[in-house]
Amino acid sequence: MAIQQKLSLMIPGPTPVPEKVLQALGRHPIGHRSKDFQDLMEITTKNLQWLHQTKNDVLTITGSGTAAMEAGMISTLSKGEKVICGVNGKFGQRWVKVAKEFGLEVIKIEAEWGKPLDPKDFKTILEKDDKKEIKAVILTHSETSTGVINDLKTISSHIRNHKKALSIIDCVTSIGACSVPVDDWELDVVASGSQKGYMIPPGLSFVSMSDKAWQASENSNLPKFYLNLKSYKKSLLSNSNPYTPAVNLVFALDESLKMMKDEGLDKIFKRHERHKLAVSEAAKTLNLKLFADENHLSPAVTAIQIEDIDAEQFRKNIKNKYDILLAGGQDHLKGKIFRVGHLGYINDRDIITVIAAIGNTLVEQNIISTDTAGKALKIASCHL
Amino acid sequence: MAIQQKLSLMIPGPTPVPEKVLQALGRHPIGHRSKDFQDLMEITTKNLQWLHQTKNDVLTITGSGTAAMEAGMISTLSKGEKVICGVNGKFGQRWVKVAKEFGLEVIKIEAEWGKPLDPKDFKTILEKDDKKEIKAVILTHSETSTGVINDLKTISSHIRNHKKALSIIDCVTSIGACSVPVDDWELDVVASGSQKGYMIPPGLSFVSMSDKAWQASENSNLPKFYLNLKSYKKSLLSNSNPYTPAVNLVFALDESLKMMKDEGLDKIFKRHERHKLAVSEAAKTLNLKLFADENHLSPAVTAIQIEDIDAEQFRKNIKNKYDILLAGGQDHLKGKIFRVGHLGYINDRDIITVIAAIGNTLVEQNIISTDTAGKALKIASCHL
Repeated sequence: MAIQQKLSLMIPGPTPVPEKVLQALGRHPIGHRSKDFQDLMEITTKNLQWLHQTKNDVLTITGSGTAAMEAGMISTLSKGEKVICGVNGKFGQRWVKVAKEFGLEVIKIEAEWGKPLDPKDFKTILEKDDKKEIKAVILTHSETSTGVINDLKTISSHIRNHKKALSIIDCVTSIGACSVPVDDWELDVVASGSQKGYMIPPGLSFVSMSDKAWQASENSNLPKFYLNLKSYKKSLLSNSNPYTPAVNLVFALDESLKMMKDEGLDKIFKRHERHKLAVSEAAKTLNLKLFADENHLSPAVTAIQIEDIDAEQFRKNIKNKYDILLAGGQDHLKGKIFRVGHLGYINDRDIITVIAAIGNTLVEQNIISTDTAGKALKIASCHL
Repeated sequence: MAIQQKLSLMIPGPTPVPEKVLQALGRHPIGHRSKDFQDLMEITTKNLQWLHQTKNDVLTITGSGTAAMEAGMISTLSKGEKVICGVNGKFGQRWVKVAKEFGLEVIKIEAEWGKPLDPKDFKTILEKDDKKEIKAVILTHSETSTGVINDLKTISSHIRNHKKALSIIDCVTSIGACSVPVDDWELDVVASGSQKGYMIPPGLSFVSMSDKAWQASENSNLPKFYLNLKSYKKSLLSNSNPYTPAVNLVFALDESLKMMKDEGLDKIFKRHERHKLAVSEAAKTLNLKLFADENHLSPAVTAIQIEDIDAEQFRKNIKNKYDILLAGGQDHLKGKIFRVGHLGYINDRDIITVIAAIGNTLVEQNIISTDTAGKALKIASCHL
């Protein structure tokens, strides 16, 4: 079984991992209660705060991004409490499921898949809530399933004006891809996962918690143990963990955060912006439609509609010939769209390569001319 | 900061990791929804069943052993249900906390730390339960905090006779160290963690679930999402995962399970038995007391009492001079005992080395003679 070819990961996670980070991952483990590990946790925690642009606690959990979102929700809320969930894709839907599972009362604010959530909808409902019954607004910043980025800056200003409600935000594919200034926007709970902008393999996830979120946690009565963030906060006082953490992934995290600091936040965000533009403009030149609203394209992933051909077959052709893995559509979008991840450890060459592969595959299927394929490369290149 | 010396891990987890496994860990990740990853999951799942000596489902979770135990409990039980918790150490205490957090009614069966749980206590309470109100018996097989192994074979026979109650067993430091014949003993829920007998770094945990456990899960009403094992079962039908798993740790798992199959269960268990005897007999020869009841010594870890000297200082001396990491006592045992882990990727040389280091440290502190230190080495060697 060939599980290790010369694979190029162009999916929205797991994303490619730098050699230096893989080498750190492959070190011999150390004791998780040792001084050496505490020193490491101290550094990674500080660097996580840098990445989140915050003075808030940023906690490291062994688990997926879903575990981090669930931890953020169940550590701050109580049974029967009213929350708003923004839903315009698969992940928005998932947070509704989690909220309902724990007995929260959900007010859904919806937009069609591919469209952004309308900040005005949040404003209206929050302003009407005189009795301050809404305890949290839960939403996804970059909706990985559709390639839409929601206007978190505006929505968070409406949440702030409400004063009572916490913001609980899935930033799984936005942290490390675009600016998420947690302190400036006063975001209370921000969840993210390692296999995305962090450039490390899956297995760790992160939750940033504001003072307001910690205050809410004091009254939270939802049952929880492994995902109780109060235990993580208590351990963090001594740079430790309540349960055995994925030590080797923390080695990798340390290395990747250092690489990110070397590049600098501004350069990282500009790189993602360039890659987003290059992929989306090239896709249009290839006569393909963008699935997401063009004014709200995620910096992490571009969803592309494809007509006449099954998107799954198209994806397979690209995997077989070029060993580039693209993501498919989820749920009702399966076979209708494919998604190009351009998140994390991606350079300009990767972008040119994926456009060349997509363009040439369309040429070989007599869908576009070689001239069109060439133009798409030129357009992509102009943005790099 | 020197986080990577020539460290020898002699703690009950993280345990040493073979080079081959570290190399697998350090591979470039692949997509977790790809055919290649599904093929890998199919193999690791089969090999996990081999290790558990079972035809039951064995699920892989990204999280610690605590996450696996919590998942087993909350996926099968319902609010207000009565459970027995066996408590003779820190981990037994933890499962009581989890049970109470989720509103279960706990009947504690206790033994002093260092002593085994008495199977008769389980028999008595289970036989009295005519109304079959007890829904589960929760206990720790190898109590890592004290080095005691509980008589799971006998206790599980009493649980079977009750017919209704599920067995929910923490086998975190027994799986891979001694035989846990899940089918023979009809164990319903068995939890374990990667950084123990599995010889891989922390981050994955495992839950074996019997048909009876799955039946109970149909009625379970405790709120859960990330740790809902039904989602893992559903995904396992297509060798997949409900949430992004720690892909690289699964590479490592695949490699380590292959190494374990090459060695064979019988040889693995005999090696752990030899090492247990070597360490415990040598400790006695060094005039040190075993903390655990000598007839119930864990094959994974030996807890050693030390008088006149602070155990924490003793442990530090051994770390500083020999770069061997021993575990300390937990809670009220801190400073009173140290624990030698001999679990997972440990060979005879490691055992001789740790005995040499302990013996010589005692000689240097004028606590024992060089002759005694020499005798301890000889005794250890006789058992290897």
